[in-house]
Amino acid sequence: MGCDIFLPLNGDRPEEECGIFGGNLENSQAAQLGLFALYALQHRGQESAGIAISGRNGIKVKKGLGLVSDVFPNLSPLDEVQGSLIAGHVRYSYGKQGTRPENTQPLLLRYQHGEIAVSHNGNVINNHQLRSELETRGSIFQTTTDSELLAHLVARENNPDLVDSLKKVLPRLKGGFAYVILAHDKIIGVRDPLGNRPLCLGILEDRQYVLASESCAFDTIGAEFVREVNPGEMVCITREGVHSIPYATPGNALCVFEFIYFARPDSNLGGRNVHLVRKELGKLLSREEPVEADFVTGVPDSSISAASGLGEASGMPYEMGLLKNRYIGRTFIEPSEETRKLGVKLKLNPVRKIVEGKRVAIVDDSLVRGTTTLRLVKMLRDAGAREVHVRISSPPVISPCYYGINIPTRDDLIASNQSIEEICNYINADSLNFLSIEGMVKATGMDRNHLCLACFNGKYPC
Amino acid sequence: MGCDIFLPLNGDRPEEECGIFGGNLENSQAAQLGLFALYALQHRGQESAGIAISGRNGIKVKKGLGLVSDVFPNLSPLDEVQGSLIAGHVRYSYGKQGTRPENTQPLLLRYQHGEIAVSHNGNVINNHQLRSELETRGSIFQTTTDSELLAHLVARENNPDLVDSLKKVLPRLKGGFAYVILAHDKIIGVRDPLGNRPLCLGILEDRQYVLASESCAFDTIGAEFVREVNPGEMVCITREGVHSIPYATPGNALCVFEFIYFARPDSNLGGRNVHLVRKELGKLLSREEPVEADFVTGVPDSSISAASGLGEASGMPYEMGLLKNRYIGRTFIEPSEETRKLGVKLKLNPVRKIVEGKRVAIVDDSLVRGTTTLRLVKMLRDAGAREVHVRISSPPVISPCYYGINIPTRDDLIASNQSIEEICNYINADSLNFLSIEGMVKATGMDRNHLCLACFNGKYPC
Amino acid sequence: MGCDIFLPLNGDRPEEECGIFGGNLENSQAAQLGLFALYALQHRGQESAGIAISGRNGIKVKKGLGLVSDVFPNLSPLDEVQGSLIAGHVRYSYGKQGTRPENTQPLLLRYQHGEIAVSHNGNVINNHQLRSELETRGSIFQTTTDSELLAHLVARENNPDLVDSLKKVLPRLKGGFAYVILAHDKIIGVRDPLGNRPLCLGILEDRQYVLASESCAFDTIGAEFVREVNPGEMVCITREGVHSIPYATPGNALCVFEFIYFARPDSNLGGRNVHLVRKELGKLLSREEPVEADFVTGVPDSSISAASGLGEASGMPYEMGLLKNRYIGRTFIEPSEETRKLGVKLKLNPVRKIVEGKRVAIVDDSLVRGTTTLRLVKMLRDAGAREVHVRISSPPVISPCYYGINIPTRDDLIASNQSIEEICNYINADSLNFLSIEGMVKATGMDRNHLCLACFNGKYPC
Amino acid sequence: MGCDIFLPLNGDRPEEECGIFGGNLENSQAAQLGLFALYALQHRGQESAGIAISGRNGIKVKKGLGLVSDVFPNLSPLDEVQGSLIAGHVRYSYGKQGTRPENTQPLLLRYQHGEIAVSHNGNVINNHQLRSELETRGSIFQTTTDSELLAHLVARENNPDLVDSLKKVLPRLKGGFAYVILAHDKIIGVRDPLGNRPLCLGILEDRQYVLASESCAFDTIGAEFVREVNPGEMVCITREGVHSIPYATPGNALCVFEFIYFARPDSNLGGRNVHLVRKELGKLLSREEPVEADFVTGVPDSSISAASGLGEASGMPYEMGLLKNRYIGRTFIEPSEETRKLGVKLKLNPVRKIVEGKRVAIVDDSLVRGTTTLRLVKMLRDAGAREVHVRISSPPVISPCYYGINIPTRDDLIASNQSIEEICNYINADSLNFLSIEGMVKATGMDRNHLCLACFNGKYPC
Repeated sequence: MGCDIFLPLNGDRPEEECGIFGGNLENSQAAQLGLFALYALQHRGQESAGIAISGRNGIKVKKGLGLVSDVFPNLSPLDEVQGSLIAGHVRYSYGKQGTRPENTQPLLLRYQHGEIAVSHNGNVINNHQLRSELETRGSIFQTTTDSELLAHLVARENNPDLVDSLKKVLPRLKGGFAYVILAHDKIIGVRDPLGNRPLCLGILEDRQYVLASESCAFDTIGAEFVREVNPGEMVCITREGVHSIPYATPGNALCVFEFIYFARPDSNLGGRNVHLVRKELGKLLSREEPVEADFVTGVPDSSISAASGLGEASGMPYEMGLLKNRYIGRTFIEPSEETRKLGVKLKLNPVRKIVEGKRVAIVDDSLVRGTTTLRLVKMLRDAGAREVHVRISSPPVISPCYYGINIPTRDDLIASNQSIEEICNYINADSLNFLSIEGMVKATGMDRNHLCLACFNGKYPC
Repeated sequence: MGCDIFLPLNGDRPEEECGIFGGNLENSQAAQLGLFALYALQHRGQESAGIAISGRNGIKVKKGLGLVSDVFPNLSPLDEVQGSLIAGHVRYSYGKQGTRPENTQPLLLRYQHGEIAVSHNGNVINNHQLRSELETRGSIFQTTTDSELLAHLVARENNPDLVDSLKKVLPRLKGGFAYVILAHDKIIGVRDPLGNRPLCLGILEDRQYVLASESCAFDTIGAEFVREVNPGEMVCITREGVHSIPYATPGNALCVFEFIYFARPDSNLGGRNVHLVRKELGKLLSREEPVEADFVTGVPDSSISAASGLGEASGMPYEMGLLKNRYIGRTFIEPSEETRKLGVKLKLNPVRKIVEGKRVAIVDDSLVRGTTTLRLVKMLRDAGAREVHVRISSPPVISPCYYGINIPTRDDLIASNQSIEEICNYINADSLNFLSIEGMVKATGMDRNHLCLACFNGKYPC
Repeated sequence: MGCDIFLPLNGDRPEEECGIFGGNLENSQAAQLGLFALYALQHRGQESAGIAISGRNGIKVKKGLGLVSDVFPNLSPLDEVQGSLIAGHVRYSYGKQGTRPENTQPLLLRYQHGEIAVSHNGNVINNHQLRSELETRGSIFQTTTDSELLAHLVARENNPDLVDSLKKVLPRLKGGFAYVILAHDKIIGVRDPLGNRPLCLGILEDRQYVLASESCAFDTIGAEFVREVNPGEMVCITREGVHSIPYATPGNALCVFEFIYFARPDSNLGGRNVHLVRKELGKLLSREEPVEADFVTGVPDSSISAASGLGEASGMPYEMGLLKNRYIGRTFIEPSEETRKLGVKLKLNPVRKIVEGKRVAIVDDSLVRGTTTLRLVKMLRDAGAREVHVRISSPPVISPCYYGINIPTRDDLIASNQSIEEICNYINADSLNFLSIEGMVKATGMDRNHLCLACFNGKYPC
Repeated sequence: MGCDIFLPLNGDRPEEECGIFGGNLENSQAAQLGLFALYALQHRGQESAGIAISGRNGIKVKKGLGLVSDVFPNLSPLDEVQGSLIAGHVRYSYGKQGTRPENTQPLLLRYQHGEIAVSHNGNVINNHQLRSELETRGSIFQTTTDSELLAHLVARENNPDLVDSLKKVLPRLKGGFAYVILAHDKIIGVRDPLGNRPLCLGILEDRQYVLASESCAFDTIGAEFVREVNPGEMVCITREGVHSIPYATPGNALCVFEFIYFARPDSNLGGRNVHLVRKELGKLLSREEPVEADFVTGVPDSSISAASGLGEASGMPYEMGLLKNRYIGRTFIEPSEETRKLGVKLKLNPVRKIVEGKRVAIVDDSLVRGTTTLRLVKMLRDAGAREVHVRISSPPVISPCYYGINIPTRDDLIASNQSIEEICNYINADSLNFLSIEGMVKATGMDRNHLCLACFNGKYPC
């Protein structure tokens, strides 16, 4: 009795920054289509949303804090602007920074060669150094975004050709990032040289090219996937079509956490469907160390695919051992201490009739601090589980991330400080197993050298 | 190309009216616990929400249109009222009636013997006759709710004892219904004589009894399930405890659609867990007529359990063939015709990588008009499915419902007018099969005579 | 230095209940015109606002808490309803009752002979007795309004003719009141037999009759004033025109406070313009006891007319000695004690440059508790006034009101317990004078027997 | 019949940009006091409002579109920040630019020597040239405000001493402007070298200095007026006190429109109370050319003082010939053409009982396009006025303004193109008279050389 469960705990899961979108939509409902794309990318960021359109009287932006549905309560944003070139953004914010309204994007700004609206995903790891250098030269900053940083660098080029300026400027940025930049007559998509952050190219009917962080945005608006933007590549979309401008030697370090947790299961990444990769993670997890239990269950929603894969591979039935309340939003206020002591279970409810007296294998996608898993195990035991076997469909997280994912510092990473056996004791599970790095790589179907595994092995790409 | 999919279509699925809650919560956070219970019942109604507390200065109500989180943006509703007796309501409204703010509940009213706040779920089928009779005697009505109807009948009894009044009045109500009635010093729960609508009794620590439409509300607030309220039974909760007052000969006609579609999978009904019943529906569906396909998928979220049951029974893998966007709310505005023609897929996205070239078995929980299924099949074919086999985990719906579920009239029930083969042609599926009535009954584990099957066999209980 | 001034203090001024409107507006913008009428009556009530229209599918109501501009943020309320018969309401609430959303009006209800929407202004003084009687006969109440009371009485008549029912029912109501009742095919206006509360009849082009609490609503919508509804008269407006139905022997007891404080200066009452009456009040106040001062000023906005009249009669210049901040709304939250100690002056600011070293004659429309005047005098002295002479453009309030005005009980009426000299000492003025009852009556230009002077002389009409 | 009157018409009156405030408020309610100051300055701008506080973790800003009461619905903005240095802003926007959320102020930004928050009133007339120069050097702009412009210039100085930087930068700005700049440990107030825009210094208890556009803000928060900031002076407020830094040779060109229209009547300017100056304008207007009429009335609220002055000087009574609806806000949506044809009078209502059959002298503060006056005259005639004599308490406006006031171009200034007689015919008045420039100057009590009269005589100060 008396386990306070509001899972997953804030900060006990890797967090990413944003979803970006842009394109040439020759449709009277261009802005509406842009909104639909943001709806499809909403899982990548729920703090703020924004749309920019390039029209006759310059670029107009509408944006604000909240979900897409909060910021755009009707489906006709920016009705007054006619234009086909459009860009959008949904933002996730780090808890520590708090919510800063000025960081909502697209960020509209004017420099000597016109207006641009910039959207960004990821993290430029040398941003402090670049900002500091710019400040020394007299620049002022109104946000803490890497979008503003890029705009400053472009403006300092004093070059009327935006693409040329970007070619000179982009190689100076280190880290994992993707940009969508809307100018008067074009949309430019940028992917970092490592290909760490995702960015895809799609097409909506003839010559109408679009860009999005994930391919599910294309499905949503009826566009077709063309290809991923290459590491170190810019693509420039105009009303005439698209052309490619490589700006750096391409590396290969796609963030493997996109497969494990971030991406929507119906997105494709590196040519593989995310749901199928997750299912494979579960299958390999089962094969590496079979678990004997009465059934398997997953932590909804992110671990459902892996759990069903583990079920299929092991022959165990998959049951709905935990139910997620769909109406507890991100802005939900935490209940009082007094209430929590009563054993309130709002976000996740273990299903006693299913769990009671059973040996439960529970799959989660990752284990970072361990606190969420500790509570999950307690919940299942309180609901009568006879045994609780925890299976993690990724390896232990041992190193922080500098490429745009919010992973705690090493001190807070339990696997960085304790053995698996110690963690198993801490979370009070009957057994605990992680997928191996080899298994994880194999499940993605990608070359090991084409993935960033830094948080699992401490080897940072550069 | 070009299939406008915003599924499920409004009106193409049975709809129910409400979730109700009440109890004695001797806790400084009584109202907060009431809110949590409403969060757990939110799936039963998203149009309005309300809380009532009986305090020193009478009963206070706070309510409004929208989700629980809209009406109560913070977790301290009615802070100014101290009291342990509390009642709550979430409401679903029929599309035709439109949204009527005055129908939000609990409905607070005063009669000669004090104040009461009434919440209701279901449908009193002789309400027009009773209203008409009351109007003839000079009553006025400010809402169209059965809560107001009951209050009028009680007030006409001229009896200071509320329980006595209810004993006389309740036998006059026909249909399927459940009430929670909050008075100054007690909470009364009522279930219809047929037991058509659900109502459960729980306990939160010593002597603090609670009532809810579904048991999942008890889990959420840390209460334990005690038993279901019996058909034709009133239970009266005070600070001293609970006692039972049978008011009518109990019948047995629990609405089978609670198992099929309405209830949350983690709720228990008739002693059976809803998820497990649904899984069994899927298993029996597979056994009645095996389907040959590459994988099975379910329409999220309501058909996931049945689909996984079918998968287990048939040995087919379960795949995420359709993805539901969690951010499209009930108030979502429909896109323009022009946009829909582009093939926008907002609510559900078929996953091409999974579906393409495959023989897909898709499980849905019910088929009413057929229009939703028609679109689902088209979506899957557009995504490249080679074959689409539709399996419905309930029998054909052939008769309307008068007990509180919004099912279209016979003319709109496709199975009332067409053979299964004709429906299969209409929805353009490669095969179509429904679960038999026998199979459905068997899956529930209940006696056939204890279920209302009227919408499937036209035999209405009375 | 250190005077906390947020004047007028809540509760230190008579408060009235509502403004009502109704009519036949054969215009595609009928609802919009109704809104404009409510804007003109907004000074009579800022707690809630509502509009009702009778259309093909019955009567529809839109209403809510707040100003007209809050409840109807755009000018197209009830767009979906086409109809020419329309009614509206703005409500003032007594502080003690608090804000009760269910009391917003028009109150829509159904009885055996159809739907009606009822709006009300004033107070039925035997409402407790009538409610109690109705409750004994089995009625239930969902509001505390006299609108619901009237509807119950009408419904109990069991008469299909609404006018006939009202003829029987209205004579049972005691007090000061006005109603606008919207039915399917007519609008009925009712004024109490004493003529205590105001109600006027106007016409907008041919045959389109309208009703309003004050004539300023007619000016606003381009209608012409026809006449006042008589005491004890009903008027029934249909699409064919208007006819009069006297229902009680007319008395004569118009509330004199409408002249003194409630009505808008551009309204006419009893054939006299309110501004001109107020000016006359000021002139007679000057003549009854001349004041020697450097200038006269009024408490904005209600005392401006009287102050300028006093100025004209005395030859003293009128100066803007006090400035009112137009942006402090009714919902303004009171500042903290700490802040108030600093001498914050938000609502009213004494103008030091005008006041300093001067003998100030300040006119206020009434003096109830005396607390507001006390603070005004202190403010003027703090701003450097050498002398402060207080002149009240009405007699001392010595008796409470039972006819719809919120005046404190006798204990709180300073003039009921203290002599004028004592009050002058209490408020720390150099002199204090009230207008005599004779002077007040004379200024209105009405027969003394045609006015209710109860709050000034304790003689209640009946 | 049928005059569509929503007066004053947008754009038919000079419009100014903003109100600014700042200071050291050593009070736990510093932010609340800041809000009160903004309430007092609200008449200077209703488009947006904002507050900035310098606390331990840097400067925090809260701001948004709307009135102070919209942006700060409770009186505890920025509760989480403790700090005594605070700045605030209310903004007026030009209609043509539309509402740009990014222009809300204070504008917070970081440069190499820390954070500053900048608020601005007026117009830097060489802003395009300075921006262009900065853009050429690689600056980017996110707003169109002169606050951002100043920040860029400061940042380019590369000087850790903010005051020193400002001393160098400010002389480059031409025009009429006032700034309040909040830094970590100080507040700096700046007034333009011409003294065209107002800025005052006050004190709240010992050593707590404050700055505001108008002295009424000091009264509101209980502070005392110290002096006006001098033309070409910076004042620097710290927790230790205040010191003065002249940065340019002071000129003398106070905008005379502050006296005529902008300032609140209880503010003092150049040592004179604004209400008294306006009254004097009216008196001199009467003396320059007496008008024979039955009474005088003013256009509320801005012309009330002048009208009462004219009344006093001429011996004519002052009457409330026009009533203003206090509930029509700035965001009020204009009614449809159809409704306007009915003669709807929402904002201003001519009082027929006062006007009918009378010779009316109406005073307005200024005449720009003439369209508003045209409608006023028509309204009065429709209400039965026998004669309408228009008196303007300022000279004809013949030249546009470049110093921060929104006056139309010469083509739209009726007095720039027509004789007084022609204007009189156009507005259909019986007579029309303007105050002479000499009269206006005399009424202000200031030296003619100390005022900017450009809009009246075309002589621009420099």
